Amino acid sequence: MHRTVERMLRTNPERPFAPPDALGNCIHACMEAAQVCTACADACVGEHLVGHLATCIRLNLDCADICSMTSRVLTRQQSPDLTVIAMTIELCAAAAATCASECERHADHHAHCQVAASACHRCFDACRSMMFGTH
Amino acid sequence: MHRTVERMLRTNPERPFAPPDALGNCIHACMEAAQVCTACADACVGEHLVGHLATCIRLNLDCADICSMTSRVLTRQQSPDLTVIAMTIELCAAAAATCASECERHADHHAHCQVAASACHRCFDACRSMMFGTH
Amino acid sequence: MHRTVERMLRTNPERPFAPPDALGNCIHACMEAAQVCTACADACVGEHLVGHLATCIRLNLDCADICSMTSRVLTRQQSPDLTVIAMTIELCAAAAATCASECERHADHHAHCQVAASACHRCFDACRSMMFGTH
Amino acid sequence: MHRTVERMLRTNPERPFAPPDALGNCIHACMEAAQVCTACADACVGEHLVGHLATCIRLNLDCADICSMTSRVLTRQQSPDLTVIAMTIELCAAAAATCASECERHADHHAHCQVAASACHRCFDACRSMMFGTH
Repeated sequence: MHRTVERMLRTNPERPFAPPDALGNCIHACMEAAQVCTACADACVGEHLVGHLATCIRLNLDCADICSMTSRVLTRQQSPDLTVIAMTIELCAAAAATCASECERHADHHAHCQVAASACHRCFDACRSMMFGTH
Repeated sequence: MHRTVERMLRTNPERPFAPPDALGNCIHACMEAAQVCTACADACVGEHLVGHLATCIRLNLDCADICSMTSRVLTRQQSPDLTVIAMTIELCAAAAATCASECERHADHHAHCQVAASACHRCFDACRSMMFGTH
Repeated sequence: MHRTVERMLRTNPERPFAPPDALGNCIHACMEAAQVCTACADACVGEHLVGHLATCIRLNLDCADICSMTSRVLTRQQSPDLTVIAMTIELCAAAAATCASECERHADHHAHCQVAASACHRCFDACRSMMFGTH
Repeated sequence: MHRTVERMLRTNPERPFAPPDALGNCIHACMEAAQVCTACADACVGEHLVGHLATCIRLNLDCADICSMTSRVLTRQQSPDLTVIAMTIELCAAAAATCASECERHADHHAHCQVAASACHRCFDACRSMMFGTH
């Protein structure tokens, strides 16, 4: 999918508002985190001790919604409002970091929380690279 | 719908993280803006001089995605992360203000842009009231 | 909000693909169900006996996603594909009916399930009216 | 991302409602189509002859919303309602086929339409494999 995301950035009549590789990487990481957090919330609901996972479910659902929205906003290249985009990336980084911390608390007991924590970390790193232009 | 939103806030086992009337009002305003911006983008695509409306289409689509995500995040009352929520509301206010400004530029020619500008202003005001506890 | 939804239908350069009052009513009912089901899933997660509510949480989350998507698809009036739109409305009606049945099973114990069941019924009725042109 | 999607299916306490490889493939294809169609709509808005692309923009936006919703519904494994899921997959296949046909009409002039048509075809095929258990 990575290659398809970048190909769409390069065929847009508008030049991407950021380097295509960093931008494509961030879109991809957001999509992955959105899917994984949706899956982790669902898996948590099915666990025996679901009562201990209420915070994890909630933060996963928020993170999924925020990452999904971020991937759409970053996908558009026409007339970007850079203030809104910067705030979007910062929100996404914060949501991913918050969700990663909570998932890590349960990673020893639940493999889905461990996978989700990793995906959130990748998403956080990709957002940070977009914000500061580092890789 | 307003009443239903508030009723759901009051039947949640968790106390709402903000006063139910301000919170319900903000959720409602976000939902309205999301719908109206989706409609305005669609209407712009069908206008004769759509070429002049590219920025308006893009900002409407972003605003719709951001408002829709915000209404979901604010709807959840379990274990809220107040930092993420504050950033979400600020992003939503910024996206609504940006979209309102662009829609206003076309309000004399297109009634849908005028309706969208008004809905975005209401959304901005509702977000501001949440941020600063004023009404 | 009802009035704003209809106003957007009337200011679109394209004539709505269905009578504006039925269409506006259906969009509104989908938005309400999407919000209420998101809220009911969240409330269920916070209940003491959350283990009994796993099915309810899942069907609420599905219904919220399907109703939200349906409200967006029905909001657009440009070049509608009527086959896709009919399938969308039928899916939405089915998801709302399924979610309503499950919520009703818990309505005696949880007021949020009762409110959600009602919103899902209204959504089902509004979809049916669109499908069969009755009110 | 493919591997992460499958890993989440295998770590869910509930057994996936379909073979993990076909299900993972379908989720992945839906996510890809959602992103590519969002990008194609945006690119179309920026083209010189955007007036000819109104149908393409609309069908891309619908397909993006439908594929995104489908990827979320298929991601959840708890207590699936198989009727709703079958209708979801059929809707997704129809939306992807419709969008692919329209994108193909513009594929000679716009590379983004060509990439979108291919992603929609992959999504259609993945949905069909889920429906009929073929690969």
